[in-house]
Amino acid sequence: MSDPENPHAPSERSRVNRYRWLARYDRETITAILDAMPVAHVGYIHNGNPVVTPTLQWREGDRVYWHGAAHGRMMQTTAAADVCLTVSILDGLVLARAAFNFNLNHRSVMVFGRPDAVTDPEEKTRLLKRFVDSYVPGQWERLRPVTSQEINATAILSLPLSEASAKLRAGPPEDNDEDYAFPVWAGVLPIRLSVGAPEPDPRNLPSVRTPETLSAFSIG
Amino acid sequence: MSDPENPHAPSERSRVNRYRWLARYDRETITAILDAMPVAHVGYIHNGNPVVTPTLQWREGDRVYWHGAAHGRMMQTTAAADVCLTVSILDGLVLARAAFNFNLNHRSVMVFGRPDAVTDPEEKTRLLKRFVDSYVPGQWERLRPVTSQEINATAILSLPLSEASAKLRAGPPEDNDEDYAFPVWAGVLPIRLSVGAPEPDPRNLPSVRTPETLSAFSIG
Repeated sequence: MSDPENPHAPSERSRVNRYRWLARYDRETITAILDAMPVAHVGYIHNGNPVVTPTLQWREGDRVYWHGAAHGRMMQTTAAADVCLTVSILDGLVLARAAFNFNLNHRSVMVFGRPDAVTDPEEKTRLLKRFVDSYVPGQWERLRPVTSQEINATAILSLPLSEASAKLRAGPPEDNDEDYAFPVWAGVLPIRLSVGAPEPDPRNLPSVRTPETLSAFSIG
Repeated sequence: MSDPENPHAPSERSRVNRYRWLARYDRETITAILDAMPVAHVGYIHNGNPVVTPTLQWREGDRVYWHGAAHGRMMQTTAAADVCLTVSILDGLVLARAAFNFNLNHRSVMVFGRPDAVTDPEEKTRLLKRFVDSYVPGQWERLRPVTSQEINATAILSLPLSEASAKLRAGPPEDNDEDYAFPVWAGVLPIRLSVGAPEPDPRNLPSVRTPETLSAFSIG
C-alpha cells in the first residue's frame, strides 16, 4: 500500500529494483508516459495462471481507466483481483561495445492495485466520451449516439496512480570504462511511432466531412 | 496442455474467447508476429501479485527466448512458474460510426507456459550471439568479446510455442448495418513504427566504421 504521509513514495511492489537509478515516482513523469501511449498491457491471474492482455488505457486526474466487454475474461477477472497495468514506449535500441551492455531507450510505467469498477451509467458515458475525444476531439458528439444497451455491455475499470512507478532510459550506450578503447561502432538506433494519413472507410457517405481534429492525434 | 495429436490446436488457456473470429493458431502467423516485434510483455506472479515486465524476445525455431539479469525479479520468478508472454503490434485506430464499435488494428501473440532456463554457458553464448545479430547481422563478432562472468550474470529463459495463439485485426470499421446511413466520418488512423538514422555514440573512436548491416533492422 502507498504511504499516506508521502503519496509519491513507492510501495513494496511498485519499487523498482533492477536499474533503480532509472526509476521515477513523481506524478508528472508517470502521467506524461500514460498520456503519450494509449496501449497498455494488463496482467492478471486467471485460474492460477498469469495472463497479459493488450488494451487501451486513458487517464483522468490521478486514475487510469480501461474498458472492455462486460462478459470478457479480462474484465470479469480483473474486476475482483489485483492487476499490474504496464505501459511502455520503445525509443531506441542501444548498441553498446559489449553485448552485456546492450540496452533499450524506453519510457515505461507500471501501475499496481485492485481495480474499481465504474457502474453508474452516466459516469460510464462521461468516461467513454473522454476516451473517444482523447483520440479525435469533438468526435463523441458527431457519432451515432450511444445506447443504454451498449453502456451496459461495456465494463470500465480504473486504478488510482497511488502505486505506480516509471522507468526511463535515454542517451548513448554506457560501456565499461576500459571498453571505450575497443574499436567497434556503438550508438543508438532510434525508434519512433507515427500516425499516417487517415484512411477513410470506403462506405463513408459522400456528404461526410473529415474532422479537422483527426490531425490532432499523436502517439509515443 | 497442448494436444500431441494436433499441435496447432489451442490449449484451454491459449484459446481466444473474445472476438474468436480474429484468432489464429497456425505457426506461420505466430512466428511472423514474434519476428516483427522484439518487445514482449512478460506476465508472472510475484508474491501473489501479477507483474508485467517489458523485455526483448527473440525466436529460434519453435521457441521464444528472453534474457535478463540472473538476480533480477523477473528472471528469478519466471524461471520457476507459469508465465504469459505477450507481443503486440499496434497497426491503427479504427474509428467507427458508433463508439461501441471503436477498435484497434493490431497483431498480437500470447504464449503460455513454464519457462525452461538455459544453463549451459556455450548454449547461452550461442543464443546471445543470435540475439545481437538479429538486430545487426555480424555485430557479435565485432563486439568486445563476452566474458564468462557476463555469461554467468545473464539468465536466459525460453518457452515452446506449443501453447500460443495469435489475434489479428485489419481493415475498415465494422459498424452495425443500420449505422452506415449515419452521417459521420469513419475510417482508420494508421500507426507505424519506424527506425530512424543511427545516432553514433559521441565517444566512438575516429577509426570505427558504421556497420553496413545497421540498415537491415526494421521493426513492426
